[in-house]
Amino acid sequence: MLLRIDHVGIACRSLESAVERYVSVFGLAVASEETNVAQGVREAMLATDSDGSYVQLLEPLGDDTPVGRFIARRGEGLHHIGYAVADVTAALAEIGGNGVRLIDSRPRHGSMGASIAFLHPGDLGGVLTELVQSFAPSEAL
Amino acid sequence: MLLRIDHVGIACRSLESAVERYVSVFGLAVASEETNVAQGVREAMLATDSDGSYVQLLEPLGDDTPVGRFIARRGEGLHHIGYAVADVTAALAEIGGNGVRLIDSRPRHGSMGASIAFLHPGDLGGVLTELVQSFAPSEAL
Repeated sequence: MLLRIDHVGIACRSLESAVERYVSVFGLAVASEETNVAQGVREAMLATDSDGSYVQLLEPLGDDTPVGRFIARRGEGLHHIGYAVADVTAALAEIGGNGVRLIDSRPRHGSMGASIAFLHPGDLGGVLTELVQSFAPSEAL
Repeated sequence: MLLRIDHVGIACRSLESAVERYVSVFGLAVASEETNVAQGVREAMLATDSDGSYVQLLEPLGDDTPVGRFIARRGEGLHHIGYAVADVTAALAEIGGNGVRLIDSRPRHGSMGASIAFLHPGDLGGVLTELVQSFAPSEAL
């Protein structure tokens, strides 16, 4: 079901500083920058050398957002892990059937046109887990 | 420099329970189980569908170990991220030259025969970061 690790989500106070760090230290390239108001973040996806394997940097849009509260509680750092799946709707049905609470019972819009859904960390050993079905250009036709 | 995300390291109190969860919920397969006394952990690597993209589950060998102290402080959850590199020695030299403190100035033994090294989270936005040079069977000849 899990095709690969699609991305690691990292909470940061300043997106600009964090992007500059990953570009200068590791030579990563910025693949996209977006604001996702529904999730309360400004974010950047930085590409490793492999297709579909990204570092996602997340700056909260305010203190009263999920990432803002995360930083207030725990500081900057690892926030969630995203796994690639072929069909996020089917994966949600299967995972929900396996007894894991779903934060998103239906997919919503994620980075770079992906369909995504989050699973509840309380049923996954404290790990906020995201499923990612990449945007397929054929769907846009 | 970073070829891909090699693995996500997840701290857990019970390796057995955590492995059971990832196998039953996500259908992952156990690729290896090892005890690494130097790192103070029992661990399992669980394979996604892609080569070189793993979930690493880490149970501390005791409270006075890095992962034991992590769990005492923050609870179970995301512990570190590991990126694949072609040459960990060369990558350490470059990253150290970019001003990041190295926890390991020279590579040491990691999971499944890999050569690994950790970078200091204090210079990387709170993210404990590992570099992984996979074991190449030709090196064993």
